[in-house]
Amino acid sequence: MTYFDKQNLWLEKANELLPILQHEIFKPLHVVNTISDTESFQGWRVNIIGTVEEIYQKTYGGNDSFILDFGEHITGYLKFKINKFGQHDAPLRLKFIFGEVPAEVSEPFDPKTAGLSRSWLQDEIINIDETPIEINLPRRYAFRYLKIELIDTSSNYRIGFADIICDAVTSGSFDLPVDTDIPADLLLIDQVSLRTLRDCMQTVYEDGPKRDRRLWLGDLRLMMMSNAVSFRNFDLVRRCLYLFAGLAQDDGLVAGCVYERPVPSLGNNLLTYSCLMASVLYDYAIESGDWQTAEELLPVAARQLDIVWENVNEEGLFCNLPGTWLFFDWCPELNHTAAMQATVIYCLRALLKLALQAGDENLASVTEKRLAKMALAAESMYDEKSGLFVSGENNQISWGSQAWMVLAEVVTGEKAVGVLRRMIACKEAIKPNGPYLYHHVIHAMLLSGLKTEATEILKWYWGGMIERGATTFWEVFRPGTDRFSAYGNFLIDSYCHAWSATPAYLIRRYLKD
Amino acid sequence: MTYFDKQNLWLEKANELLPILQHEIFKPLHVVNTISDTESFQGWRVNIIGTVEEIYQKTYGGNDSFILDFGEHITGYLKFKINKFGQHDAPLRLKFIFGEVPAEVSEPFDPKTAGLSRSWLQDEIINIDETPIEINLPRRYAFRYLKIELIDTSSNYRIGFADIICDAVTSGSFDLPVDTDIPADLLLIDQVSLRTLRDCMQTVYEDGPKRDRRLWLGDLRLMMMSNAVSFRNFDLVRRCLYLFAGLAQDDGLVAGCVYERPVPSLGNNLLTYSCLMASVLYDYAIESGDWQTAEELLPVAARQLDIVWENVNEEGLFCNLPGTWLFFDWCPELNHTAAMQATVIYCLRALLKLALQAGDENLASVTEKRLAKMALAAESMYDEKSGLFVSGENNQISWGSQAWMVLAEVVTGEKAVGVLRRMIACKEAIKPNGPYLYHHVIHAMLLSGLKTEATEILKWYWGGMIERGATTFWEVFRPGTDRFSAYGNFLIDSYCHAWSATPAYLIRRYLKD
Repeated sequence: MTYFDKQNLWLEKANELLPILQHEIFKPLHVVNTISDTESFQGWRVNIIGTVEEIYQKTYGGNDSFILDFGEHITGYLKFKINKFGQHDAPLRLKFIFGEVPAEVSEPFDPKTAGLSRSWLQDEIINIDETPIEINLPRRYAFRYLKIELIDTSSNYRIGFADIICDAVTSGSFDLPVDTDIPADLLLIDQVSLRTLRDCMQTVYEDGPKRDRRLWLGDLRLMMMSNAVSFRNFDLVRRCLYLFAGLAQDDGLVAGCVYERPVPSLGNNLLTYSCLMASVLYDYAIESGDWQTAEELLPVAARQLDIVWENVNEEGLFCNLPGTWLFFDWCPELNHTAAMQATVIYCLRALLKLALQAGDENLASVTEKRLAKMALAAESMYDEKSGLFVSGENNQISWGSQAWMVLAEVVTGEKAVGVLRRMIACKEAIKPNGPYLYHHVIHAMLLSGLKTEATEILKWYWGGMIERGATTFWEVFRPGTDRFSAYGNFLIDSYCHAWSATPAYLIRRYLKD
Repeated sequence: MTYFDKQNLWLEKANELLPILQHEIFKPLHVVNTISDTESFQGWRVNIIGTVEEIYQKTYGGNDSFILDFGEHITGYLKFKINKFGQHDAPLRLKFIFGEVPAEVSEPFDPKTAGLSRSWLQDEIINIDETPIEINLPRRYAFRYLKIELIDTSSNYRIGFADIICDAVTSGSFDLPVDTDIPADLLLIDQVSLRTLRDCMQTVYEDGPKRDRRLWLGDLRLMMMSNAVSFRNFDLVRRCLYLFAGLAQDDGLVAGCVYERPVPSLGNNLLTYSCLMASVLYDYAIESGDWQTAEELLPVAARQLDIVWENVNEEGLFCNLPGTWLFFDWCPELNHTAAMQATVIYCLRALLKLALQAGDENLASVTEKRLAKMALAAESMYDEKSGLFVSGENNQISWGSQAWMVLAEVVTGEKAVGVLRRMIACKEAIKPNGPYLYHHVIHAMLLSGLKTEATEILKWYWGGMIERGATTFWEVFRPGTDRFSAYGNFLIDSYCHAWSATPAYLIRRYLKD
């Protein structure tokens, strides 16, 4: 079987594993308004001002509008009925604005001044020629708040609304799995984490159901871990693994992300994520017990590290080529040298275990040698004076470098504990900006036994989102700067984001009573 | 059979007569732009700037836009294909603006400052999650110009367009019936008139396919006459007659208009039009030869004149009750007294002929007496000094009064000719504002043998629309004031309007070589 044939087979397998989605009807809980308030999240305070029943009893005309609160973030399809009162003698023009956060239903989308495509902002304008009517909007939305604005009826009729519902979908479950051993003060974080996972689990693990709706390898790796301690839908993981394998470039490089629709296709290259293929595959096999798939895709994981190895110099140091995208955090200052060195080591360890399990002695032997060489080189990044790892020419100290060095077991035991403690104490150290890196920091702490410190950061960071109103966890959160965006427009940010769904894993695996 | 049962039967018959629409594919002819130009119609000059093939060869992104010219007004459904170039990594957001006239694709619809419902302005914003895609917009539009605006793609992809077509529909025919005896200088007016009729002929005779899309009795009467000399789809007339009869009020009053969808229902009352039921029915029977339907619906026509008769005083004068809507023209100054007196007489004449044909001696006798009484009373409105009919307390002189008095045969022969000649010469006389009244003026002239004068007005008025770019005739046209609207916003006016489709009738019946 040629490599091309194999890829087609993997894409076929991915297709066979297309999940049937679970459905659940969500009804709006309240009518709300939003008031400008500098103390509230992103400057908008939400007040309950009425019941949905009151909305259904009123009639609407002209430019009337109202905001519904569905109580929690959901991913799904909007359905509603419209009745008419009087003579429908002109089309009805309506606008729907879907908001994950209050700001989206409070601030105008236009003119858009910065950021990614305007089309990610979730609004629809529809013209309706005949009423009464039952409408199912065809697109899927991710939202908690729904603003309905009448653009115009006519002077001769008014409309009424009934049965506004969201037909929510997931390939996880709407029954969030309960674990009675979770400490009370972490219960809510666990629940919000699983809801995030639920809303991102569709026909692939999407990074964000509002935006980008793509399957990223780095996000898949983290979601898979939370999935392992909750929904345990491993078929979806397998489908995603086959998509990455089936869509790999001709040279075998696996993409950082793939597009599922209209047909599976290659997305951006991101070497950090390609490298992690071995880690995802190993973790998947460990969690699911499916060593058969691990063995089948082992050459794909191995190929990533062969490609990465081309960038490792004689001293065993990973040297990034200009123009190659690496990612650890949305943090422009962060130097990647140490973190990438550690990531490669981390992945070589996973590959070694996969090779041993598969009985591939040749691969195991090559991997072991590479691992030893890179681990030795990594030690040169340890600065004896500060007791911390330094990165790049300017010896930058960051949480990212320390966390990945610990995860890669370049330091272990008491030495790792010391590194992490000194990292916390180091005022100059560059701290994470987003949940993706905070996850790795906390994971490193928990693996080193620093439960108290890990719990504190977990509660401060993810608990901080909940304090600001989150019912799913966000793509980016910088405490104190609510309107920060990695894309220049916080309205386009994702407020239900895959890589933010890891607390369930961290809590259930390491922090239970 | 009760009256209620009869009405249900008529509605059933109307339903059985639902026409199967003819389809024809129209392709855009040119790419155009519009330039502000005070000399051009409504201030916009249209320039051809490229071929449609060029559009299909280009790619589009960001906020690109272009305007297509389909060459003539059509009523139908837009279909097109979108290809993508690059990675479709964000939804595609597009806006479509449909224009009957250049101004609609040149001036912003928002904020709407005046006029009828914003929802009549024909624009759609759609979000597309996946490309390539073939899209059939579900709503019907009436347009010649189509502006396509990209609201956003993303920086990673551009789109291409292909096969933009309009699936045009009519219950007339896309082969406009030819008549070789039409004088050369009236050929174009005849053609534009039939195109207007074509685009208004759908599952009912609509007043305007853009706005209001309603079946008005007054418009039906005029369209039926043009239909009689061209498409000869009398089943559609019959369907419309049954709709009016089936939807009459409990007291038997037929509405001025009815709504076809979602289920047939009563529209506005308009006594002038109700009164004309006898005229429509008689003309229909004459033109189609279907005296069976005329006999079946004769009681409905008779009932309208019974109701009108309640407002006729001892002297035989129609006295309008406050709050009853009469209509002859969009002209606030026009006094209705003389015109309405004449209209009732005109309709009594039609009813008399229907009664005689049906052998209903009793109805004929009653109608004849009423007719004589009202005609006698009408003579009192003739002012010997001016040789013109005067209307209302202030003895207003208008073209409307003279035209209707001639149509009603209150004056005939040389006397009618004299009235019409003096009307033309009278500088103070209130002239028509719209095509509905101009039709009646010209009809009166032609019936009186004033071919030259009639042709002159026909060419000046309807020919004037063509000079200003019309490919279908308009709801309202005031030469010299292009942006006049009866509704406060000329963008909402209908530029393909049923009551403007009568030149084909006037030409083919009275002006052929």
